[in-house]
Amino acid sequence: MDANPILAETIRGNWVENRHRGAYVVVDASGKIIAQAGDIERAIFPRSAIKSMQALPIFAREAEGKFHHSDEELALACASHHGEEAHVATASGLLARLGLSAADLECGAHLPTNPAAREALRAQGAEPSPLHNNCSGKHAGMLSVALAMGVPTSGYVGREHQVQQEVRAAVETVIGETLSEDRCGTDGCSIPTYAAPLRAFALGFARMSTGEGLPPNLARAAHRLFDAATKHPHLVAGTGHADTLIMGAFAGRVMQKIGAEGVQCGAIRDKGWGYALKCDDGHMAASQAMLAGLLIKIADPDAAQSRVLEQFARQPIKSVRGAQVGELVSRV
Amino acid sequence: MDANPILAETIRGNWVENRHRGAYVVVDASGKIIAQAGDIERAIFPRSAIKSMQALPIFAREAEGKFHHSDEELALACASHHGEEAHVATASGLLARLGLSAADLECGAHLPTNPAAREALRAQGAEPSPLHNNCSGKHAGMLSVALAMGVPTSGYVGREHQVQQEVRAAVETVIGETLSEDRCGTDGCSIPTYAAPLRAFALGFARMSTGEGLPPNLARAAHRLFDAATKHPHLVAGTGHADTLIMGAFAGRVMQKIGAEGVQCGAIRDKGWGYALKCDDGHMAASQAMLAGLLIKIADPDAAQSRVLEQFARQPIKSVRGAQVGELVSRV
Repeated sequence: MDANPILAETIRGNWVENRHRGAYVVVDASGKIIAQAGDIERAIFPRSAIKSMQALPIFAREAEGKFHHSDEELALACASHHGEEAHVATASGLLARLGLSAADLECGAHLPTNPAAREALRAQGAEPSPLHNNCSGKHAGMLSVALAMGVPTSGYVGREHQVQQEVRAAVETVIGETLSEDRCGTDGCSIPTYAAPLRAFALGFARMSTGEGLPPNLARAAHRLFDAATKHPHLVAGTGHADTLIMGAFAGRVMQKIGAEGVQCGAIRDKGWGYALKCDDGHMAASQAMLAGLLIKIADPDAAQSRVLEQFARQPIKSVRGAQVGELVSRV
Repeated sequence: MDANPILAETIRGNWVENRHRGAYVVVDASGKIIAQAGDIERAIFPRSAIKSMQALPIFAREAEGKFHHSDEELALACASHHGEEAHVATASGLLARLGLSAADLECGAHLPTNPAAREALRAQGAEPSPLHNNCSGKHAGMLSVALAMGVPTSGYVGREHQVQQEVRAAVETVIGETLSEDRCGTDGCSIPTYAAPLRAFALGFARMSTGEGLPPNLARAAHRLFDAATKHPHLVAGTGHADTLIMGAFAGRVMQKIGAEGVQCGAIRDKGWGYALKCDDGHMAASQAMLAGLLIKIADPDAAQSRVLEQFARQPIKSVRGAQVGELVSRV
């Protein structure tokens, strides 16, 4: 297997300290490749980067027709949120309307990603609940699908459960690939994750962005989800996070979503392009540097958007005393 | 530049998620190569992996003759410690004997690496002091060198300060390379770090282990430091850490030290071999997997030592709910 190219490096003083390899691809909805680097046919786990695809059954199975998900709830279904007040409130609001509670979430509990939210919880002497789990919005959405389908909610995270079968079918339709048990794992939040070629995820985002190549109901659902996510970028990640800042700066033009272990997926909506990027070694900050470098190249940023991207394309490395001693830089 | 080989991978379910590349080399004190992979001439920042070399001026400048460093203080000078009670007490004990205090440390303050120590500090509502900095033992040792040399202690972390000049000269002697301003950075604890070929650091550890190729005073100093570190492995890292567990299991046969950003250096003392390893992307857990894989190959572990190494050569990856969903595995 050939090595992917170096797409980010850390420099300490005047010498390279770390090298991060990876691959990326930008395609339009017809599959035409706009830009690429590395092995774009290698199957990667998309992890949370495709939560917007995993949310499609909310529409396909008419949970939305029944429970009238708000834009905020749809944005949170696409989110890896930081457990801030708005995130927790939005997730628990949907659960209450479903007649369910945090106890029905099967994602597990972890401390909020947001440091202030984490400290607030600690100060209260409270334990984190599944509502603080960055995936609670996605899981609340999946519970709404189970109710709409009239199937048991319990065990909805299982590979064989009808909800996960629906999710799998929706992802297959959107990316144009059959997902296989031969390259399947379990995500941090206990649902299945299937590896597929990097190129296919980029194509899926191009299709969701344009509706081209999708059945009309999925095209409408995708449009609604991308609108909701880009209208509420704070709900999709959290205070200070790259996804939130980038989507905020691009004001609807860019849909952007991280996935664990160095995955970045999204769409330049006005161009109808989808993109997917994976840092081979799973380094999140390096993958954000790569992503920012890519968007600087392909997304025609204005001055304000460039400033946001630059802070991720060149990230300072500091000593314990706070002096800048190096930087993590995109080589895209 | 050719890519280094993949030396560790993470597997999720049944598919590879991340790939970590790197290089390693094992040499004897004559420079004869025992084992190698990847580009062993590439200059890498050794970071904290060579604290035992940076501690040599304690002897060369006769600070030890004046202040009678205990074995515990010498072990802590070689340490990236976890800020546990014994670490803090040992560092402050030496400072008191020097007539100095935590205020003289220029490493900066960070929360203890050890989770229980961190929680204890939080529970007291106390801020971390420079004593909790993982480098406080090294810095206390450097302060003792400044006093023994009769030079100002203030500014001892600076590249031009006599203490750092002494440290640089000792490292150059031990590794047999000239350190250059052309490949120099600042470490997290504010002292200079110089990049040099991976092979040279392995050679330095072989020389320190055997004394061969070193002036007699440095040979004696190296022997005393390695004895101190391997006799007090808890002081060199902390509870549950790979270095502490590995040195404990090998009971003096192996000197082992991590450096930030995926560096591992050490010596198989009874064989007279030094080794150095760098994970290209700086991933610490992956570098520990690589190191464990290497020691399984070269260090003739008995059953108990193998059990310790295996827990780092194959590290479980768990979901938020605690189920094992994958593993990080050595490919050395």
